[in-house]
Amino acid sequence: MTTTPPEPDKLAEARAALATSAPLVQCLTNRVVTTITANVLLAVGAAPAMVDNVHEAADFARIASAVLINLGTPDDMTAEAMRLAAEAAAASGTPWVLDPVAVGGLAFRTALAHDLLRYRPTVIRGNASEVIGLAGAGQGGRGVDSTAGSDEAEPAARDLAARTGAVVAVSGATDLIVSETGTARIRGGSVLLTRTTGAGCALGGLTAAYTAVTDDPFIAAVAAHLHVAIAAEEAEALSAGPGSFAVAWIDRLDAVGPDALAAGLIRRLG
Amino acid sequence: MTTTPPEPDKLAEARAALATSAPLVQCLTNRVVTTITANVLLAVGAAPAMVDNVHEAADFARIASAVLINLGTPDDMTAEAMRLAAEAAAASGTPWVLDPVAVGGLAFRTALAHDLLRYRPTVIRGNASEVIGLAGAGQGGRGVDSTAGSDEAEPAARDLAARTGAVVAVSGATDLIVSETGTARIRGGSVLLTRTTGAGCALGGLTAAYTAVTDDPFIAAVAAHLHVAIAAEEAEALSAGPGSFAVAWIDRLDAVGPDALAAGLIRRLG
Amino acid sequence: MTTTPPEPDKLAEARAALATSAPLVQCLTNRVVTTITANVLLAVGAAPAMVDNVHEAADFARIASAVLINLGTPDDMTAEAMRLAAEAAAASGTPWVLDPVAVGGLAFRTALAHDLLRYRPTVIRGNASEVIGLAGAGQGGRGVDSTAGSDEAEPAARDLAARTGAVVAVSGATDLIVSETGTARIRGGSVLLTRTTGAGCALGGLTAAYTAVTDDPFIAAVAAHLHVAIAAEEAEALSAGPGSFAVAWIDRLDAVGPDALAAGLIRRLG
Repeated sequence: MTTTPPEPDKLAEARAALATSAPLVQCLTNRVVTTITANVLLAVGAAPAMVDNVHEAADFARIASAVLINLGTPDDMTAEAMRLAAEAAAASGTPWVLDPVAVGGLAFRTALAHDLLRYRPTVIRGNASEVIGLAGAGQGGRGVDSTAGSDEAEPAARDLAARTGAVVAVSGATDLIVSETGTARIRGGSVLLTRTTGAGCALGGLTAAYTAVTDDPFIAAVAAHLHVAIAAEEAEALSAGPGSFAVAWIDRLDAVGPDALAAGLIRRLG
Repeated sequence: MTTTPPEPDKLAEARAALATSAPLVQCLTNRVVTTITANVLLAVGAAPAMVDNVHEAADFARIASAVLINLGTPDDMTAEAMRLAAEAAAASGTPWVLDPVAVGGLAFRTALAHDLLRYRPTVIRGNASEVIGLAGAGQGGRGVDSTAGSDEAEPAARDLAARTGAVVAVSGATDLIVSETGTARIRGGSVLLTRTTGAGCALGGLTAAYTAVTDDPFIAAVAAHLHVAIAAEEAEALSAGPGSFAVAWIDRLDAVGPDALAAGLIRRLG
Repeated sequence: MTTTPPEPDKLAEARAALATSAPLVQCLTNRVVTTITANVLLAVGAAPAMVDNVHEAADFARIASAVLINLGTPDDMTAEAMRLAAEAAAASGTPWVLDPVAVGGLAFRTALAHDLLRYRPTVIRGNASEVIGLAGAGQGGRGVDSTAGSDEAEPAARDLAARTGAVVAVSGATDLIVSETGTARIRGGSVLLTRTTGAGCALGGLTAAYTAVTDDPFIAAVAAHLHVAIAAEEAEALSAGPGSFAVAWIDRLDAVGPDALAAGLIRRLG
């Protein structure tokens, strides 16, 4: 399926395909991050569509290029829409990404996340606490903050990957991406990504977009995390604080093209 | 009711009235664009109020200066609130704008949009696919993207205008605005308006604001589209990508005054 | 409990504690301002968590450092979650802030606000019209706009403080903060705070964050309002309009440290 490390050419191809094919990414995500998720997707050339009601979610998942399901602010209605979208995505072969925000510490969303695993997400993306919480190996964190580093989540990530077949991506100071056949660690990025809301959630959306333009979900996850890291480093150099960082990050996500993505791989591999 | 082309003085008067009368614009809009819609309205001097629950929507529509109803992320509750607000607006003479986001391709919101036409919107604003979808003349687009140009939507726009009495505005590379008595085409703007989320939806809010300060909805629609186009051109010149564009666009929406709006008309008329 | 005026050292201590203890602030707030509220909290070093569904709101309020309840866009589900969170916060000793957006003019949220007073908020924060509306002393404003100055709300604020034991903060050109034992007036800030959406609502979140790091809610409210005012003045000097102001304000909220907060008190006291 893939090798370790990922091939730079594959990353460049995926980045180019994002801009040329404009994949339609259905987002069922939380109320805090809808805007930044949409703006990140638009910046890289994808087409976001926040179709998350129970009447339309399943139909849209069948025609979407990819689906993001993020558990940040679930309620009864959106939880049902998420189930319908995941089921339809699985049935129709639409790749989908599960972002188990704050799972492990809160019973309602933890049960929802476990239920959604039935529909076999293409990629699971979270911080270390969330991945540990989803794997059932700990109590999780206290919300979107991770109280653990990505290395601590490696056993949980491997366990999830083995049980579900998903690529599992753990974001942190060093991102960890594991599949049944490959592993990558990506250094770099910027601490300012943790000082503006929704960067991690938007990364989930970007991962979904990449799953639409490559057959290899491991490449998709690596490309998304690397894309975010490079843009964040460039944005940090241009910014005076978390407000201007968030703006510059969007600018740089647009600017990072296929060559920059491929070239950025080697020195950021952990 | 109006002439073709619109008179520059009328545009300048409307722009001045926005800043001095601070119309109260009730927005029942989608979860992705609430912030940018509010910020666009505040930037031009209007007062946004996102009152969209079933208990308050109708009462507020009676006292609001104008109402925006945007179908971007409808659910059962907000759909009911939209019906109540539209009915109250129509009964009390409050002008209101319908933005039929992604109508045509999704059954739930398409039925809702058709139902809302009963309450005779003052202005209907969408992209070409949405206007075609609402008129029942095609399958619509694949979400917020339009797969058609505004000229292709002209028959549908004229049909809708004739059937409902509404001014119909179709945004695109060239905006098309038709009423039973006039037509305008507005060139210009910036492609970056399509690279940041909510610019079109916020244009719907701005159109609603203008309907509150002029008796002529055709002038209101032309003023809103022209205002957005001028500010976007200025913002593009100041920006390094879609992130900084969105920020500069808000700054320039504030800065475009009555004289600039009137002066900008001639060279942008199609 | 406190003296008038507040002691600068107490403000500096609270500011330092925000950054070092990263209080977990649960926000049940309105759909327009989730992003800016989260970004303001992240900018100052706090950890926002928008847990606002009926299944999780109470459990989370027991472990949160502080809770914000903002009535900007209530519906049946979020109103119930707010009741549960307020009850749990009161029972477990978690400080909480009530922001009665547009209360006084709209029956549904006015009834909800009065009901929430049973759970004895630590701080009540609003504009003059809202505080007057909550105290039952007038018809309130027409939404988030205040049609009154903070001085006009002083009797209502004192009445509320006496009846509920809460610190009551009234924002305006001069902010007024009253408790049963102290009073402060804070001048300064920027009119641009009223030209970008959510600044007042985010101030409610910041007030909640400060209640988590000081035992004195009067100091917490003064610190939050002063912090916002100083950052806004600095941001105005850096900005070209309401769009760039909002970005610079986040940058400067991060930058205002303990010494700057303490030093800023004297010349802004009214």
